[in-house]
Amino acid sequence: MYIKDTIAAISTAIGEGGIGIIRVSGPESIQIVNNIFKSIKAKDLADVDSYSAHYGHIVDTSGQVIDEVITLVMKSPKTYTTEDIVEINCHGGMVALRKVLDLILQQGARLADPGEFTKRAFLNGRIDLAQAEAIIDLIRSQTETGLKVAVNQLEGGLSNKVKDIRQDLIKLLAHLEATIDFPEDEIEEFNSEELDGRIDGIIERVEGLLKTSQRGKILKEGIETAIIGRPNVGKSSLLNSLVREKRAIVTEVPGTTRDIIEEVINIDGIPVKIIDTAGIRETEDVVERIGVEKSEEFLNRADLVLLVLDGHQGITSEDQKLMEAIKDKDGVIIVNKLDLDSKLDFNKIEDILPGRPIVKTAAIENKGIDKLENVISTLVLDGEVKNEDQTLITNMRHKNALDRAHQTLLDVKNTFKMNLPNDFITIDLRAALEAVGEITGDTIGEDIIDQIFADFCLGK
Amino acid sequence: MYIKDTIAAISTAIGEGGIGIIRVSGPESIQIVNNIFKSIKAKDLADVDSYSAHYGHIVDTSGQVIDEVITLVMKSPKTYTTEDIVEINCHGGMVALRKVLDLILQQGARLADPGEFTKRAFLNGRIDLAQAEAIIDLIRSQTETGLKVAVNQLEGGLSNKVKDIRQDLIKLLAHLEATIDFPEDEIEEFNSEELDGRIDGIIERVEGLLKTSQRGKILKEGIETAIIGRPNVGKSSLLNSLVREKRAIVTEVPGTTRDIIEEVINIDGIPVKIIDTAGIRETEDVVERIGVEKSEEFLNRADLVLLVLDGHQGITSEDQKLMEAIKDKDGVIIVNKLDLDSKLDFNKIEDILPGRPIVKTAAIENKGIDKLENVISTLVLDGEVKNEDQTLITNMRHKNALDRAHQTLLDVKNTFKMNLPNDFITIDLRAALEAVGEITGDTIGEDIIDQIFADFCLGK
Repeated sequence: MYIKDTIAAISTAIGEGGIGIIRVSGPESIQIVNNIFKSIKAKDLADVDSYSAHYGHIVDTSGQVIDEVITLVMKSPKTYTTEDIVEINCHGGMVALRKVLDLILQQGARLADPGEFTKRAFLNGRIDLAQAEAIIDLIRSQTETGLKVAVNQLEGGLSNKVKDIRQDLIKLLAHLEATIDFPEDEIEEFNSEELDGRIDGIIERVEGLLKTSQRGKILKEGIETAIIGRPNVGKSSLLNSLVREKRAIVTEVPGTTRDIIEEVINIDGIPVKIIDTAGIRETEDVVERIGVEKSEEFLNRADLVLLVLDGHQGITSEDQKLMEAIKDKDGVIIVNKLDLDSKLDFNKIEDILPGRPIVKTAAIENKGIDKLENVISTLVLDGEVKNEDQTLITNMRHKNALDRAHQTLLDVKNTFKMNLPNDFITIDLRAALEAVGEITGDTIGEDIIDQIFADFCLGK
Repeated sequence: MYIKDTIAAISTAIGEGGIGIIRVSGPESIQIVNNIFKSIKAKDLADVDSYSAHYGHIVDTSGQVIDEVITLVMKSPKTYTTEDIVEINCHGGMVALRKVLDLILQQGARLADPGEFTKRAFLNGRIDLAQAEAIIDLIRSQTETGLKVAVNQLEGGLSNKVKDIRQDLIKLLAHLEATIDFPEDEIEEFNSEELDGRIDGIIERVEGLLKTSQRGKILKEGIETAIIGRPNVGKSSLLNSLVREKRAIVTEVPGTTRDIIEEVINIDGIPVKIIDTAGIRETEDVVERIGVEKSEEFLNRADLVLLVLDGHQGITSEDQKLMEAIKDKDGVIIVNKLDLDSKLDFNKIEDILPGRPIVKTAAIENKGIDKLENVISTLVLDGEVKNEDQTLITNMRHKNALDRAHQTLLDVKNTFKMNLPNDFITIDLRAALEAVGEITGDTIGEDIIDQIFADFCLGK
């Protein structure tokens, strides 16, 4: 399925670090590193134990020492890729890392594509596709809850459930096909109730997984959140309060320009991403800057809107316009400055935004923030009870596959009700089996596999 | 000299990577990792071989798996710090890395200070101070030449030369002191010629090292370079040409805001840093933007100025002003657009900036760029012949110590000439010995050591 050549890449993050690692995988990896690695004992890495580490130097063809390193030799098949792997543990300088990588490429290795090490782990059968996908989710997880879900998936939590569903589909299919192919064997045909019951059982499990997909998506991708309100209602104090309480993670968003910084607040494991933080912090007048009319455009991006009102003042016409603007959005009304006497007419809010959750805060004193977080969490997770099961559908690809399987199984029930021949049922069951198999990669095209791993980071 | 507790830190660069490493060093390191590391074979890391690696999981106190890891156990004394070290090789996600680090700290390790692992390597006598300093130079080196110089220093190139000088000073001192302390032993006193000769020999070697300090500083720190000129003379084409030829390294400058990007061009191993690249690229009119009068302020920062003139036009009054402005600066005059008929009066340049190197280029066609690079290299290195010896003084601290030693040795010669008693000579020799010893850390205060390592990166 792939050329078994030897690949190499810098596997640690780019930047200044105490340790930088170059990973080499493939049949020639040990020989290639041997050529440029000199240890005091003149060790041949081909002769050392698997999972042993060796101190020495990387030396170029002219004998110039490039770096002082530790090489870690891991021999096939018990490695990340199942191939021979050598990891070169360098002092973390970029010039040295690039130079060592250059030397390895000169020795005949090929620069690895993004995700190619993990792709090999999948193609060589060490992990299935859902587990492979969990690895990049693990790396990119933004909260501990997201991390746990990814680790669960990596450890086979989702794969096992999918495999169970596949097993049951296969059993059902085998039985049905036997009755079609060998009618003379008098294999007992399912009675309608039994077949219906077994399919319902499978549908239930597919639906059980699908139900987790909203929470899964949210935990993985986070919630884009806009804090809006007139100038000086306390937007930046609110943000500061949220950040201070929850130890915000400031991340650069991959693929965007370096100017965009996102502030991610961890609320109940949900990565709540504040849009346009810089704007809030600097000017306190996002609305003023872009105009109330234009603010809709700004709001469109948001999954969730936090509208801040000044509890000490009445509701102004600007406030009203903002309330109108978020009518179709998930959102929370925050009545800030409750430390001062409230002059706000709460009925007016109810008139414009009936049933919308309202939280009173005094952001500057950190009051009401816990309540606000609870409200956000409940709203975002749609009241779903948090269960301890960490198997969640976090991946759109998985959700789509399950959706298709689900639809096909409903079709089976229909076909069955209409008393159509078993052939019709087996065709649908086979389609459901194929759809579910896409999740673990048992049934999937090469192009989709390529697409999945292309999204990985270099060196993984 | 220090509390031998156990320290831990994330040792890879911050960011998304395929591998992230947490390093733990100290007497409890193996026990601490044992507490949170579960391998299939339930290995006790205390019993495994030094320099062996082990596959398993990091598990928190509730049994929750945090990450799939490989631990590398290196036992005292043959380790980076000379203490027991465990390196935990995680999937490179920041949330997982922070969580694993948290667990280790909960088990009793202390978060390492920047450079603390290397500081321990020094305090425990594995490397001397100059070697320790070479490690951070290696990490921060910007060109391969800089890397080689750092590696040479790490391998003891500078330390050995310094030790030789110290040895000779010690021998001299021992002899002089013997003649003072035991005059009855009739130890042969040096005759004036012999003493003078020996001191000259030492001075010569100190001067030899000092001579390398300009080149060393330049290779390590680079040359801040300003490209100036009227609008549309071809500044940005020139920059593009330099960048294209030499594969520029774009670096974020540590400690500055994220907006400032420096473009570093490697010319003969010299990191040539272009100031205000963004300005050049975007507006092509640095001068216009800041005004010719103000441009002096801008120029003040630069070690080197590249003044671009338009070869197709005459020298304008603006050009003249710019030439006047760089009279006291190192600089090169670039007459660009030589592909067009030159209308430039070269005598005028000679009048204002006599003897200044002039290079003709056609930046847009990459012509004259090699020549320009040669001129820059020669100018920057002050015509110093490049020798193959990679022992250079790259560190101001080392240069200052050598300067003091040098001055003291000149004093010795003076004292000797004035026929003052040997006591006077030994006091000076002792001061020289102390100054030289600061380089390798044989004679140095704790505060200076702290200061040196505080400049390191976390996890090193």
